[in-house]
Amino acid sequence: MQAWKEYQEKNKDRFLNELLELLRIPSVSARSEHKTDMQRCAAAVEQSLKDIGMDNTAVYSTEGHPVVYGEKITDPSRPTVLIYGHYDVQPPDPLELWHSGPFEPVIKDGKIFARGSADDKGQFYMHVKAVETMIRTNSLPTNIKFIIEGEEEIGSPNLGKFVSSHHDLLKADVILISDTAMLSMDTPSIDIGVRGLSYIEVEVTGANRDLHSGIYGGAVANPITILTHMIASCHDENNHITIPGFYDDVVEATPEERKLMAKAPFDEEDYKKDLGVKELWGEKGYTTNERTGIRPTIELNGIWGGYTAEGAKTVLPSKASAKISARLVPNQSATKITAMLLNYFKTIAPASVTVKAEEHHGGEPYMTPLDSKGYKAAEKAIEKVFGKKPIPVRGGGSIPICSLFEKELGIKIVFMGFGLDSDNLHSPNEKFDLVNFYKGIETIPYFHKFFAEL
Amino acid sequence: MQAWKEYQEKNKDRFLNELLELLRIPSVSARSEHKTDMQRCAAAVEQSLKDIGMDNTAVYSTEGHPVVYGEKITDPSRPTVLIYGHYDVQPPDPLELWHSGPFEPVIKDGKIFARGSADDKGQFYMHVKAVETMIRTNSLPTNIKFIIEGEEEIGSPNLGKFVSSHHDLLKADVILISDTAMLSMDTPSIDIGVRGLSYIEVEVTGANRDLHSGIYGGAVANPITILTHMIASCHDENNHITIPGFYDDVVEATPEERKLMAKAPFDEEDYKKDLGVKELWGEKGYTTNERTGIRPTIELNGIWGGYTAEGAKTVLPSKASAKISARLVPNQSATKITAMLLNYFKTIAPASVTVKAEEHHGGEPYMTPLDSKGYKAAEKAIEKVFGKKPIPVRGGGSIPICSLFEKELGIKIVFMGFGLDSDNLHSPNEKFDLVNFYKGIETIPYFHKFFAEL
Repeated sequence: MQAWKEYQEKNKDRFLNELLELLRIPSVSARSEHKTDMQRCAAAVEQSLKDIGMDNTAVYSTEGHPVVYGEKITDPSRPTVLIYGHYDVQPPDPLELWHSGPFEPVIKDGKIFARGSADDKGQFYMHVKAVETMIRTNSLPTNIKFIIEGEEEIGSPNLGKFVSSHHDLLKADVILISDTAMLSMDTPSIDIGVRGLSYIEVEVTGANRDLHSGIYGGAVANPITILTHMIASCHDENNHITIPGFYDDVVEATPEERKLMAKAPFDEEDYKKDLGVKELWGEKGYTTNERTGIRPTIELNGIWGGYTAEGAKTVLPSKASAKISARLVPNQSATKITAMLLNYFKTIAPASVTVKAEEHHGGEPYMTPLDSKGYKAAEKAIEKVFGKKPIPVRGGGSIPICSLFEKELGIKIVFMGFGLDSDNLHSPNEKFDLVNFYKGIETIPYFHKFFAEL
Repeated sequence: MQAWKEYQEKNKDRFLNELLELLRIPSVSARSEHKTDMQRCAAAVEQSLKDIGMDNTAVYSTEGHPVVYGEKITDPSRPTVLIYGHYDVQPPDPLELWHSGPFEPVIKDGKIFARGSADDKGQFYMHVKAVETMIRTNSLPTNIKFIIEGEEEIGSPNLGKFVSSHHDLLKADVILISDTAMLSMDTPSIDIGVRGLSYIEVEVTGANRDLHSGIYGGAVANPITILTHMIASCHDENNHITIPGFYDDVVEATPEERKLMAKAPFDEEDYKKDLGVKELWGEKGYTTNERTGIRPTIELNGIWGGYTAEGAKTVLPSKASAKISARLVPNQSATKITAMLLNYFKTIAPASVTVKAEEHHGGEPYMTPLDSKGYKAAEKAIEKVFGKKPIPVRGGGSIPICSLFEKELGIKIVFMGFGLDSDNLHSPNEKFDLVNFYKGIETIPYFHKFFAEL
């Protein structure tokens, strides 16, 4: 395994420069003006797979953004690892808060600052370079398949269909994903769960036009006022969600699991300081890690209506809208919760307004069994490189396609994330530490080695 | 008076074309990018006063937008009428809802469509053309002073200082303002009250940066959620305002006044149909006209926060903001209510967020006495031209400078508005009926005649 280390050391700078090239492509899946950037990025990803010697590479068109595929089948008797990642990124807004251009990556204090550096270009690219390492040193212990999609950040609306119609192509023994985080480099961890997601948009319409707030104010429903009442009604004074039936399918964590979670290192004062808040907020009766790990939540992702520019305008607007998402825990169904949310917002509105509520996207929650072969291989690989056995934790994020992968392909998923929660994912100044990038490339070959040996 | 009619008939088209020129200047006082347009508009207004033979015209600089002045003192023994109006307009947003450019006036179905057509360029310009009529026919029965300001739509922040330091210049016997509406051309009316205004902006900050809503959601206060709770707390289930002390100074209308108000023609079905709403909304226990006329209100004029563009972004935003205004009735103090609102939003916030609350502008409510000479002259003038005695009504809008005018100059104000509530003031597709424009020009000289005779 000395050969891996030597190869990586020698090619270190090239690995980084290649990643920076990829980060320069503004592959924002949510915005239609980036359609050609998405195609350009898919082509670049395919090329990177060709360059390391993958076979049968292809850019598959979908009804949305394309899916990139590539494989290296060295020996059909060996186990096959399907590596999933995504080349699309979140919108970079608000742009004014970035210290450097979101698509002009810079290295500062040993970190790569760019949209997608950690989520997920930087992370899936570790796999490309780890597989290159094994191929170039003639030491690939597994068969490899890559599936890198372009719609993760918008809920993978077309990947399900692709997976359903490509069972043979995607046949594998485990799915390996690096799109989550570790607690820290000193406290390596493995996410054993991702939350599900229901994402909806609500539009409240009052009068058929904007009105003068003096002439009509007080006599005609103000859609902003109504929308705020509707949103406020979702949480009670203990920040418990009040939508009837929302918690019905939640399987409460056992006292043992909660006790285990409480052992993970967590400094509330540091956490508050990093976020710049005086007090935390959340559902009464649960700790911070429980609130983000084992409890479902409802978050407001955006709100707008009326006059929002400089100065004052005395308008009673015609419309107000909000983007609202729920994170779900195992045994909750995104389909069910999405229907519940849409119905809730449609039915609680007073007759003085009309409400349009529509789904953006969703994804089911997923849990990795601790006794699965994939989890054990990941645990051994991390212990080998970090010198410490990783802690299993339940992450707060979502990877919409996971539950479908398992259902369609009948195989388990393991999350081997090398990012940090503080990487500003989905926020301005997203970053990925160089140390994490290289440590990931170093660790991944061991996963393949141990998975093949188990 | 036949001479007036003939002069106006002959110059009809010119009057209109001059107004259209004025409407082409985008004099949006709230937006700093229109600063030179404001200066251009002030110069155009001054020129229009020069053109009709006003003396001592001037564009007075202020710390904000300029004030235009002009006078015609024919005989110091005659009463002097001070005509107030404003050449600034509301921002035209949302632009996409206009059927034609807000500053490219078009005449359609006998109406002038343009921002400012009714509020207030079209209305103050009736006075310019009415005074022209009297000067050119050598029949001016009063002395005239014009004061046309450029900051009415932003709360007249600099006019108070100008008035205080120009008592002699503005000395008059009555102030005449056309910046309100009539019930209809068939039911002429005179506004005897304008509501006061308190306008504030509230900004709620949670974490010091936008966060990933999966990783942090549920554990860190979401400023949109908090802001919606704060706003929702302002009204109870009867749409009664719950802010402690808000109604303290309200003098309830007497049963007699309410009975009189109920006699004004009002068709709720027509009103709802025009607005496109199935049900009205408002404070329990009051009729629609009472809700907009004699009751104070709180309206949301704008709200924004998080991701508001196309598609979905799973962000837990750092900030959320709202523009909030209250309309006040006689005996309420805008200064007091503004302080009350600022304090309310600052103190109800939980410790998990910080709140910045700042004043935009305010203005005190005003009532015209029915037994004042000005009211009587307006009543006679309207009866003369419309053939019906106008009904006194209490309008919902605000003209911030009124109470200060009375305090500083010691004279009463009369509102002789010729617009309609349905003119889309402050909204897309603002319009002013040509009939109303010409009827106003026809009526105004009679005001001067009757005021001089009373």
